[in-house]
Amino acid sequence: MGDYRKMWSDLNMDLEKHDVLCAVLPELYGSVYLNQENRPEGMNYFNFVVSEVHGLRIEELANTKTEGNKVVGTFCVFVPDEIILAAKATSVGLCGGSQFWIEDGEKVLPRNLCPLVKAIVGAKLSATCPYFQSCDMLVGETTCDGKKKAWEILGEHVPIHVMDLPQMKRERDYESWREEIKLFINKVEELTGNKITVESLKESIALANQKRRALKRLYDLRKNIPSPISGLDSLLISQIAFYDDPERFIAKVNELCDELDERVKTQNPDERKRILITGTPMAIPNWKMHSIIEELNAQVVVEETCTGTRYFENEVSSNGDTLEDLIKNLADRYLKINCACFTPNDGRAQDIIKYAGEYKVDGVIYYNLSFCHTYSVEYKKVEDELKKNDIPVLFIETDYSSEDSGQMKTRVEAFLEMI
Amino acid sequence: MGDYRKMWSDLNMDLEKHDVLCAVLPELYGSVYLNQENRPEGMNYFNFVVSEVHGLRIEELANTKTEGNKVVGTFCVFVPDEIILAAKATSVGLCGGSQFWIEDGEKVLPRNLCPLVKAIVGAKLSATCPYFQSCDMLVGETTCDGKKKAWEILGEHVPIHVMDLPQMKRERDYESWREEIKLFINKVEELTGNKITVESLKESIALANQKRRALKRLYDLRKNIPSPISGLDSLLISQIAFYDDPERFIAKVNELCDELDERVKTQNPDERKRILITGTPMAIPNWKMHSIIEELNAQVVVEETCTGTRYFENEVSSNGDTLEDLIKNLADRYLKINCACFTPNDGRAQDIIKYAGEYKVDGVIYYNLSFCHTYSVEYKKVEDELKKNDIPVLFIETDYSSEDSGQMKTRVEAFLEMI
Ligand code: SF4
Ligand code: SF4
Ligand code: SF4
Ligand code: SF4
Repeated sequence: MGDYRKMWSDLNMDLEKHDVLCAVLPELYGSVYLNQENRPEGMNYFNFVVSEVHGLRIEELANTKTEGNKVVGTFCVFVPDEIILAAKATSVGLCGGSQFWIEDGEKVLPRNLCPLVKAIVGAKLSATCPYFQSCDMLVGETTCDGKKKAWEILGEHVPIHVMDLPQMKRERDYESWREEIKLFINKVEELTGNKITVESLKESIALANQKRRALKRLYDLRKNIPSPISGLDSLLISQIAFYDDPERFIAKVNELCDELDERVKTQNPDERKRILITGTPMAIPNWKMHSIIEELNAQVVVEETCTGTRYFENEVSSNGDTLEDLIKNLADRYLKINCACFTPNDGRAQDIIKYAGEYKVDGVIYYNLSFCHTYSVEYKKVEDELKKNDIPVLFIETDYSSEDSGQMKTRVEAFLEMI
Repeated sequence: MGDYRKMWSDLNMDLEKHDVLCAVLPELYGSVYLNQENRPEGMNYFNFVVSEVHGLRIEELANTKTEGNKVVGTFCVFVPDEIILAAKATSVGLCGGSQFWIEDGEKVLPRNLCPLVKAIVGAKLSATCPYFQSCDMLVGETTCDGKKKAWEILGEHVPIHVMDLPQMKRERDYESWREEIKLFINKVEELTGNKITVESLKESIALANQKRRALKRLYDLRKNIPSPISGLDSLLISQIAFYDDPERFIAKVNELCDELDERVKTQNPDERKRILITGTPMAIPNWKMHSIIEELNAQVVVEETCTGTRYFENEVSSNGDTLEDLIKNLADRYLKINCACFTPNDGRAQDIIKYAGEYKVDGVIYYNLSFCHTYSVEYKKVEDELKKNDIPVLFIETDYSSEDSGQMKTRVEAFLEMI
């Protein structure tokens, strides 16, 4: 690893505190990831990305900034990356996944709040996340109570643009979301000084679709019995999708998939239980649920989450000759995402059932970050639908701490024995 | 009290369970309310209303239903009563305030959810609230995560119309709220078979404004030192405002105010500490916070809550000659409400500071129902603003149970000594 202290210091980071964070991650990664057996060669790139998570990629961001480009931070898969890319800016997903930031988050937020929100705020306030420090603008959205209110706090420290996501999916809400996308375009143009054109938007739509297709290819491979890649590794790739350079990421995922194509030709079926995870996002380095499941010799084969299928399913159409057309295509694709923040959100249970069939899963684990109300309330409906379809489901509510790992393991173990 | 068993049974209520509820309320009311010294004569009407809460008023609703009119239940002060009234329907505020319903709510909802939401759902599912049972339609809104998702559950049991409240207050959000009001008009017209006209809407605007004015008159009287009426009694009146017959309610509040006008002429200032309550709503029979404060010989003189100033402040203008004009007036008035569900919600801290001055308060108690994220996150901002203005503030997070009453009392006592 290079010496990045000057770069970090230029980003106004709290170097001392950041050292503590840097000391934790490699150990965690080593024990969770590098201990896995028989990993694909293609994972080496992603190992490298993790080892350079606060180094090389941040340097790349710094370089693009030196060239006059902007970096925009987002927190939700409803914010269309295409707009950011079309203005020659770089998009980084900032969903905080580390327990490290909770303490600082809790200095200004109530404790009984979703850890993701606390980590987001803690990461910014502690000045220990170089991604946050690199951002010229953040983009919030009105998806859940915790985030909606966190924007007010973050807004005191960094420019933030908030997109008002409709809470329903009527025709008028599609129109409204188109309007929000237009306002977002204005904002990004203002920030970057670059006009978004039909051409540049078509290009970024194509790029984002390629990324979706690469992830879809990876996920399709997981439909094999066994999946040629662990759930942990797939999760990592999904997490890296949010901040890596898109072109390189696409190439590396496809390389890996070529290797996995070969694997599936020679492998034999095994008896490991196949698990679908559904629920709240798992931001890097939140690998807790997957590592517990896979240590118990089951396989996570699909995630119906925002660090899973919701990120890549459905492409954006590039049909049309005007910005208006393309904006409509964007709105149509994005509003198809079935997040629990909608009322009602009937599509999600159907998605889970569909994936359960396609990925031939033995059971579903409903992963709920503590105090995430929208997902925890929605559990009842999902549970009812899954039961109607004879799909076993286990509800796990947890945060980023390791305190409940033992208890989680016991519950998952019992579930795996039962299904 | 009459024999209402047949009426309750016609409402498909769970009579046995309802008996248990009926047995609890009078005792609670007696100990909290009837023990107060020197109550105004005018409170007798409100005592009576409480004693007949599941009786006479429900009979009135039944009678209006027999005449072909409809009853519409609401849960938030953003839903414009004027529309319901203009269609000759009756509006009842259904915010559940009783611990009694929590258990049934928790059968389908997570425990770590706001008690208000759990009580709402529990009241419906247990079929023990005759107001719920009387409603032909419910009106939900997209204010907070818990409610937004609860509508999906309630919707399985009773017709519900959801209004998508914008989460911000830009010009375009005002337009959007006008659209939502129009959709609500359509829905209410469809339900009732009555067209809403400029004339009927002007009438209902006038009526709702009269109610606001009566409450404002009551609150203005509380600015006296001492307030001629207890915080508990004022709170009760605010709570009753949500379901009583509007004309009668206005008359009775004004009668009471006439009496209070006389009181203030003869009374002497006293030394009791004057408290402003701000935060989440207190639905009937949630009198916990007020009773703790007033037992400690302090006076609650104003509530910056939805069962307080947010309910009556700002009248709706009746200027204009078209429905369009009146709808704009409604949207303008309602979107002035500074609820924590907005991002940002800068106005609320300013409201509190203004009221703290007008009501000459010694301190502010920030009352937060457990797990209400929007208000608990907003505390930080309000605290900062109040501190800048040298106004002492105490944060209390609590639910409907009495388990923490002792601890709350200790904290309030210490706060009262300090200010
Ligand atoms: S779970 Fe919902 S709010 Fe969270 S990132 Fe996904 S879409 Fe956005
Ligand atoms: S997990 Fe839930 S509470 Fe947390 S940020 Fe996402 S939607 Fe909000
Ligand atoms: S606190 Fe907000 S959401 Fe609740 S009733 Fe008041 S305005 Fe509605
Ligand atoms: S108190 Fe808060 S959580 Fe409860 S219903 Fe009102 S806004 Fe929602």
